[in-house]
Amino acid sequence: MKLHKNPDPKGLDLILQRPVVEEQQLSDLVRPIYEAVKKEGDAAIRRYNKSFDSNNSSEITLDEKEIELAVRLIDSDLAKAIKSAAANIEKFHRAQQSQTTVVETTPGVFCWQKQVPIGKVGLYIPSGTAPLFSTVLMLGIPATIAGCDEIILCTPAKENVVNPEILFAASLVGIKKIYKVGGAQAIAAMAFGTETIPKVSKIFGPGNQFVTRAKLFAQLNGVAIDLPAGPSEVLIIADESADPNFIAADLISQAEHGTDSQVVLISPSEKIIQSVRRRIKEQLKDLPRAEIARAAIANSKAILVSTLDEAMEISNKYAPEHLILNTENADRLSTKVINAGSVFLGQYTPESAGDYASGTNHTLPTNGFAAAYSGVNLQSFMKSITFQSIDKDGLLELGPVVEAMAKAEGLEGHRRAVSLRLQKLQIES
Amino acid sequence: MKLHKNPDPKGLDLILQRPVVEEQQLSDLVRPIYEAVKKEGDAAIRRYNKSFDSNNSSEITLDEKEIELAVRLIDSDLAKAIKSAAANIEKFHRAQQSQTTVVETTPGVFCWQKQVPIGKVGLYIPSGTAPLFSTVLMLGIPATIAGCDEIILCTPAKENVVNPEILFAASLVGIKKIYKVGGAQAIAAMAFGTETIPKVSKIFGPGNQFVTRAKLFAQLNGVAIDLPAGPSEVLIIADESADPNFIAADLISQAEHGTDSQVVLISPSEKIIQSVRRRIKEQLKDLPRAEIARAAIANSKAILVSTLDEAMEISNKYAPEHLILNTENADRLSTKVINAGSVFLGQYTPESAGDYASGTNHTLPTNGFAAAYSGVNLQSFMKSITFQSIDKDGLLELGPVVEAMAKAEGLEGHRRAVSLRLQKLQIES
Repeated sequence: MKLHKNPDPKGLDLILQRPVVEEQQLSDLVRPIYEAVKKEGDAAIRRYNKSFDSNNSSEITLDEKEIELAVRLIDSDLAKAIKSAAANIEKFHRAQQSQTTVVETTPGVFCWQKQVPIGKVGLYIPSGTAPLFSTVLMLGIPATIAGCDEIILCTPAKENVVNPEILFAASLVGIKKIYKVGGAQAIAAMAFGTETIPKVSKIFGPGNQFVTRAKLFAQLNGVAIDLPAGPSEVLIIADESADPNFIAADLISQAEHGTDSQVVLISPSEKIIQSVRRRIKEQLKDLPRAEIARAAIANSKAILVSTLDEAMEISNKYAPEHLILNTENADRLSTKVINAGSVFLGQYTPESAGDYASGTNHTLPTNGFAAAYSGVNLQSFMKSITFQSIDKDGLLELGPVVEAMAKAEGLEGHRRAVSLRLQKLQIES
Repeated sequence: MKLHKNPDPKGLDLILQRPVVEEQQLSDLVRPIYEAVKKEGDAAIRRYNKSFDSNNSSEITLDEKEIELAVRLIDSDLAKAIKSAAANIEKFHRAQQSQTTVVETTPGVFCWQKQVPIGKVGLYIPSGTAPLFSTVLMLGIPATIAGCDEIILCTPAKENVVNPEILFAASLVGIKKIYKVGGAQAIAAMAFGTETIPKVSKIFGPGNQFVTRAKLFAQLNGVAIDLPAGPSEVLIIADESADPNFIAADLISQAEHGTDSQVVLISPSEKIIQSVRRRIKEQLKDLPRAEIARAAIANSKAILVSTLDEAMEISNKYAPEHLILNTENADRLSTKVINAGSVFLGQYTPESAGDYASGTNHTLPTNGFAAAYSGVNLQSFMKSITFQSIDKDGLLELGPVVEAMAKAEGLEGHRRAVSLRLQKLQIES
């Protein structure tokens, strides 16, 4: 963890710079997979399943019996924990439902906006070093609350076996259409559809750089995606009220995601920073994923600042995916957050809580995208449609406004669509 | 307008097929412009202003005096109309403000979602055959209500002159930073920033195919955009209660946008369809933009169906940008709308009203994107940040759930961030 003491504002950009992905090379690797799935459909999926996942089965659709088996096999304490997390996630996302309000903008002119579920959505759940069954909850629950008609799930099946926790979570959420396919080929299948896998309107879910690149291709082909993606990140702002042991644990929990994880600590206290560095070393000693975490920590930054406000300014500039405010009066400081994905306040609010079970979503904007993007929420599975209904009095009032503006924009056809109606109304009256 | 009588559902896809853009060729034309602006900044902007807009001025920023002049020059009736439209747009978008609600998902676990404005946004306003000053209102008003810190506007200046109505609308909305630059070069300038033009986090606004392609490039570079774009569209569902003259006028008002405009009429009445075709011919006779409209109408479709429900099914499949329901009981039919950008109900609700003045936004999803995308609304200028605060009791309750799930996902670091805290709490108590 490299320490930067009171860095010059001009130097901050360099300190906070994120890794840049080799665009062209990645695209060249993903494109042939994409094209093959588009052209050959299921045949390409079977070929990739064989070569990438040692899965020789010709069956792509998961058999419902496999779900039943997984549900029976799951450890009962874990099942209870998953159900408890699911209940919180459901509670938080259900509270995001909005009411339709009719606004009478001019007497007789009624306008409203209605949230309607996206019909077909596809969820991608990776299952490499960490089988992310928690993501099944984070995507599946809001999709169900939104009322999406068709929710499909793709996940890789090494040697034709899908992780049972993923199946348990899917079953709990009510997802029935599960396909055994991973990587860029899964994204392509959902973007174009194959004989077996339906085409969807929006694709959700995390993945490695091939998956995220494939999602960008999908977007270029008119399929919506949840978020552009980058390596996971945490930025912690801490003062002397914080327990260095907690800070170290929070930094490590981020670092263990991947060697490219971004980890930043900002504090007005050098004592805290030094103490956190020592605790990190201690805690890493017996961590199972220590090698991954150590690589990420080696790239991480500690920044010594003069005030907490200065720390917040830097954080807003960085726009972290996760922001932990481990300070006295974290509530007050939190009102100054402008750019962040999800914010954790106080000593007893570790990021892990939001990753799994508090109820907030863990699919969040990385790579500085928090400046313009929201994390996944209920609205991510819906779209707003506007409606308007104008009565005769309304058009008599509004019509001349439209006529004047259409004329000035040189769109006579637009003007006439109103004028013809006004003429009829004048004849009638 | 080609008539398709009760088409076979299998043939519908072909009938409703939209034009496909030559992707590669377009990218090859836009990429050098993009790269030049990225590398050379203002110098490239000045070069393109000279060659594309015959603008030899070295000044890119609009002088405030030009705004003052425009405000003084504008026709007073038009000014009144624009102000009236602006008031409706403001009323409708202000009603979209949301409250922050704290949800206690588990006793002691408090989660909430807060809408925060996007700091820097860029608006692009084209000014070719039709100077779209109405779009200044449609983008500028919600940006102001959202509270965006920096709102910039780029618009082309043929021979160094910006359309005065655009300047009047910008002044009304309160936009002060206006730059004289159009096309793909304007989008690139806002995506990367130049010496003069600031980099923004999100780019809004319509444009020709070069502009929309440049926006896709911006998106690949991490800058958010309002919507992917395609040619403008209207689909009208009408029964015998409709006035064919109104239907013809509404179809033409869409067709006059561009030769690639998509125009579709669906009706259970062949009499209405035939009558509309005759009225279109009549109305086109003296339309200023008749040539453009005629080309679009030549490509347009009339579909004869058996029932209004069948018409609605086809519309939902097509997912039109604008949907006009000119039928008896349009209210009832409107509850069946699943995919559309903006919906207009009844005889006296022409699309023109929403294009200019009723209050709804006219920046809408085209090209079938209404299946997954919303039109621009207040939320387009904001992002949601989630917050959580867990007290000691909350963590004692939630902690074991997080521990169990983190363990099952093989993320021991995540588990420990909780376990360390629970240990401290147990020692304390």
